[in-house]
Amino acid sequence: MVIDKDLFKEVIENFIPMHQMLGVKLVDIGKGYAKIMIPFRPELVGDPRRMSLHGGIISLALDSVGGAAAMTTMLSPDDSLSTIDIRIDYLRPGKPQDFFAEGELARSGNRIIVTRMIAYHDKSEPIAEGKGVYNVKRKID
Amino acid sequence: MVIDKDLFKEVIENFIPMHQMLGVKLVDIGKGYAKIMIPFRPELVGDPRRMSLHGGIISLALDSVGGAAAMTTMLSPDDSLSTIDIRIDYLRPGKPQDFFAEGELARSGNRIIVTRMIAYHDKSEPIAEGKGVYNVKRKID
Amino acid sequence: MVIDKDLFKEVIENFIPMHQMLGVKLVDIGKGYAKIMIPFRPELVGDPRRMSLHGGIISLALDSVGGAAAMTTMLSPDDSLSTIDIRIDYLRPGKPQDFFAEGELARSGNRIIVTRMIAYHDKSEPIAEGKGVYNVKRKID
Amino acid sequence: MVIDKDLFKEVIENFIPMHQMLGVKLVDIGKGYAKIMIPFRPELVGDPRRMSLHGGIISLALDSVGGAAAMTTMLSPDDSLSTIDIRIDYLRPGKPQDFFAEGELARSGNRIIVTRMIAYHDKSEPIAEGKGVYNVKRKID
Repeated sequence: MVIDKDLFKEVIENFIPMHQMLGVKLVDIGKGYAKIMIPFRPELVGDPRRMSLHGGIISLALDSVGGAAAMTTMLSPDDSLSTIDIRIDYLRPGKPQDFFAEGELARSGNRIIVTRMIAYHDKSEPIAEGKGVYNVKRKID
Repeated sequence: MVIDKDLFKEVIENFIPMHQMLGVKLVDIGKGYAKIMIPFRPELVGDPRRMSLHGGIISLALDSVGGAAAMTTMLSPDDSLSTIDIRIDYLRPGKPQDFFAEGELARSGNRIIVTRMIAYHDKSEPIAEGKGVYNVKRKID
Repeated sequence: MVIDKDLFKEVIENFIPMHQMLGVKLVDIGKGYAKIMIPFRPELVGDPRRMSLHGGIISLALDSVGGAAAMTTMLSPDDSLSTIDIRIDYLRPGKPQDFFAEGELARSGNRIIVTRMIAYHDKSEPIAEGKGVYNVKRKID
Repeated sequence: MVIDKDLFKEVIENFIPMHQMLGVKLVDIGKGYAKIMIPFRPELVGDPRRMSLHGGIISLALDSVGGAAAMTTMLSPDDSLSTIDIRIDYLRPGKPQDFFAEGELARSGNRIIVTRMIAYHDKSEPIAEGKGVYNVKRKID
């Protein structure tokens, strides 16, 4: 499947209701790779004393971008993808600003996809790193 | 610190902006234990074809409830808590319905708290299980 | 497949070279459940100042017992099993004594098995908890 | 603390009984980084049909090398280190050959160290990736 950027943009930004509510933007996508941006809004704060992002919004973004990277390996729109597990390491507090998340493949199989993900405002100082494991159900299985 | 349920309810439901946006309800809280409810709304859907919850909203709820359980070990309102890492195993698709999340302590130390979490509509059929590791910074350290 | 305890004992204690070297004993096995014992020997120590077990031997035992629990779902001796990922939380130092590990299913599917594992000397004070995700390749796939 | 390679070599190869039994070799060590080699022997096999390494020996090596990388941040020989949790993703079967493991810091704090680890025969085709979280207890705390 050739990477149809407009189609992925439509799916990731508009077709997934959770992403639409958060205003997720697809910044870049390629074979085995995706990058999204989550625009800041005050509701994403987890600790108002420190004005840091809620860890859950970061894990949500990492799950989404790992899934997007995994989706680029799908051979047909009828293939479906589900998350088996994710693991997130929080490295620094997230600031009350837009943030980015990137995902790339660590393992790509016919059934199991493993992705590495990273979240950051400034890529040299990541706020979180993650791993995701995804189950691909292919129609042709 | 005695568990002041009204104070925890205020903190978890209203003080944390992310929870307020989602309408998180604190159902129960006790020493080393917390239970919350996340009301369904269509924006929480991750896959409209299957009408399943977005995995990220489940991980967000598990992070929150693990943090709430960890918070019950705090000795002072000045102690602060941050998530070191979380791991989520997705066991079944989440339905387009309200769901619950519970957290309890697996390890409770002066500095490191580990929690077990579970998410479900019906407790006998969990939709996800998780583990969270939290860093407690005590004022008296 | 009926659980043939003698066959599992043979596979787990003798057929797997790593287990034979360590002297792993199969204590109990049933549908979706396994319990093993790892006999103490001085070489398993990780920190001689504290005389605590090496964390790696605990993770090895948890991986093994999760795999044994997963194996009980196999339908044919030709089915094969591989570990996709494991996560271990260390809760207490392991003592210089024999220890036990138990595994049970958290999710059982045709392709993906998730197990919960625990390691202990005394079950009321676990030294570690884990989760394992296993890939089952069935001959009949 | 300056990195005393001979001292680290002595600690990692000889002082830790588990490493001595396995014949672990310290290949390289520097500030926030360590590389070890685990010599193959037939007892490390997990599946004799495929002649693949036991996953547990890989997780043991990753835990060890993450710990070694974390140890390089210690300020005094009296500081102590314990593993809070590890997570291992298995990417390819390990072959019946010597293998390497490398660890580097992802987060370095006064109390919590997070490391990224990788295991391989050939670095361009890793057999596993991991993350470790370590608790540092400093004498000067």
